[in-house]
Amino acid sequence: MQNVYSYQQLYTFSKNIFLQIGCSEANAAIAVKVLLSADLRGVDSHGIARLTGYIRLWEVNRINANPAISIVHETPSTATVDGDKGLGLVVAPAAMQMAIDKAKNVGTGWVSVKNSNHFGIAGIHAMMALENDMIGIAMTNASPLVAPTFSIERLLGTNPIAVAIPAGNKAPFVADFATTTAANGKLEILQRKNEATPAGWVQTSAGQPSTDASEVRNGGALLPLGGDKEHGSHKGYMLGSIVDIFSAILSGANYGPGVPPFPAYVPMPENMPGEGIGHFFGAMRIDAFRPAADFKTHMDKWIDRFSSAKTVAGEQNVVIPGEPETAMEAERTKNGIPLQASVVNELVELGKKFNLSL
Amino acid sequence: MQNVYSYQQLYTFSKNIFLQIGCSEANAAIAVKVLLSADLRGVDSHGIARLTGYIRLWEVNRINANPAISIVHETPSTATVDGDKGLGLVVAPAAMQMAIDKAKNVGTGWVSVKNSNHFGIAGIHAMMALENDMIGIAMTNASPLVAPTFSIERLLGTNPIAVAIPAGNKAPFVADFATTTAANGKLEILQRKNEATPAGWVQTSAGQPSTDASEVRNGGALLPLGGDKEHGSHKGYMLGSIVDIFSAILSGANYGPGVPPFPAYVPMPENMPGEGIGHFFGAMRIDAFRPAADFKTHMDKWIDRFSSAKTVAGEQNVVIPGEPETAMEAERTKNGIPLQASVVNELVELGKKFNLSL
Repeated sequence: MQNVYSYQQLYTFSKNIFLQIGCSEANAAIAVKVLLSADLRGVDSHGIARLTGYIRLWEVNRINANPAISIVHETPSTATVDGDKGLGLVVAPAAMQMAIDKAKNVGTGWVSVKNSNHFGIAGIHAMMALENDMIGIAMTNASPLVAPTFSIERLLGTNPIAVAIPAGNKAPFVADFATTTAANGKLEILQRKNEATPAGWVQTSAGQPSTDASEVRNGGALLPLGGDKEHGSHKGYMLGSIVDIFSAILSGANYGPGVPPFPAYVPMPENMPGEGIGHFFGAMRIDAFRPAADFKTHMDKWIDRFSSAKTVAGEQNVVIPGEPETAMEAERTKNGIPLQASVVNELVELGKKFNLSL
Repeated sequence: MQNVYSYQQLYTFSKNIFLQIGCSEANAAIAVKVLLSADLRGVDSHGIARLTGYIRLWEVNRINANPAISIVHETPSTATVDGDKGLGLVVAPAAMQMAIDKAKNVGTGWVSVKNSNHFGIAGIHAMMALENDMIGIAMTNASPLVAPTFSIERLLGTNPIAVAIPAGNKAPFVADFATTTAANGKLEILQRKNEATPAGWVQTSAGQPSTDASEVRNGGALLPLGGDKEHGSHKGYMLGSIVDIFSAILSGANYGPGVPPFPAYVPMPENMPGEGIGHFFGAMRIDAFRPAADFKTHMDKWIDRFSSAKTVAGEQNVVIPGEPETAMEAERTKNGIPLQASVVNELVELGKKFNLSL
């Protein structure tokens, strides 16, 4: 069963929750905007369904509702930021804004962040660059669920990469993807339905191939994009590693198996090598390379050419990254956001704690 | 049958060839160093086996042996470079050096290049950053052999990405990979042996799954990393697209199906939207984020942890990107470079044209 809520309803509820845990008015507004952008864009696993999870992290003192976000090191085109244990939903937009400001000055800006937490969907942060006629880049490391090629151990998170690129008359190009064969959210959906995964998504705790959607819960692992060595899983492993290093070893955050978990009931890793979760952001001014109008003309041509490609019999068009999400956002802004009954129940319970009703 | 040649033999021969087509002493030396780095690192498909191909491009006037490589647009952290139809083997190191110089000044440097040609292996350009205690990034678009998810048409090249990251006592982390399930070189090896490919590498000209290593030659296509939608091929397609856009739409090079071919006998595409092939380079100074010594200490720890991961029964260790290539380089520098008989024959024929013997 699904219930449909308007954006405004969910916005007001979530913002009040963030205010109740002590966020400032401005930070609560930013956090909700980032959180609900996932619901609007159809990434249901990363939206309001996670609100309870964020609050649980606050309850066990793993999140600081009033962070003093600061630059600890910088050059004209770079900064290293300490998120002060803040919500990633707040720290990430602040850091991305710094990247944008630096790009305004010297063409590009690059910011590595330590001491943060989960930041919602990567794409929304990268997209902040668009209105400035910039290309935006966002990535984050995450708690270890992924086994590198040949490994039994889970050493990497799903470590997503987002790249947002402005176009002219067309919707922007927005790629936002986990560096695994499938995102954990997709696995959870199959788990709930009690269905098998395709081959190449997960392995058992002994490193053997499996199609059981519960493997990760049972000590198995998600697999890097590619699935196995023969199909290029070393490339997915490399991508996940690059995200880990840019996000955490540049900034001083935790990395590899030392990245803290999202569920508040999971104990923190032992011997953590850094502070919090790490992110990495980039902004490149288009006109630092060529006039923005020229670039956009060619982006529109690029999009036209790919959209109109001949497709395999029976298949849809070639999808331009971000197009389905742009369409979903328009649809849900107008018609509301459907929530699963289990998510609604969780939110109702969460509201009771703070005397708020959904 | 294989013949083994010393690096110095191949260096002298190749350099003389480049001098014969009119390269300057300095450019011939750079071109050979880049070209043979592929042979040393074990990427045999991109090394001296391609020398004849480069010379054929010069013969049909698609390569300018004496390019005036110039910056056509710049900011403190960016540049757009016109390669003047030069050898990519020469244009790429020049552009990467510009990125490094900008990083020295403002923390990072980013260079997009148009009007270039094939640049050899991406990794060697990214690695130029290492000796400067910088992270290096290199990518290039290439002629269309890859069908995006759902497409029958070949719209992207194998569009590789390389990222080189310095470590302390350990060998550097060097990722260098095509954004396809398998690089074209691997396909060519199977073709020669008349062997089938694994599933997920290629499709027929009608877009159907195939394991025939000759598909690409017969109008089929290589598949993006992931293989098919269920296994994440839209992610490989997004990665290839990002490389195409950064390399060509930022710079004004050709993109998508308009990228010129490597074989000189293949006609140029119609209605080309830009100039030549495009590349993109980045350099980030480590100490623009944190002291280089701290970074390297943690990179060594990262490498140690991943190297020592428990592995699947019967499998080798988790491989650190670049480690096998570093070992191969040491081995071949000492013991020489094995060349296939067919490559040797081609080189002997090439030498005859210029009165040079191998």
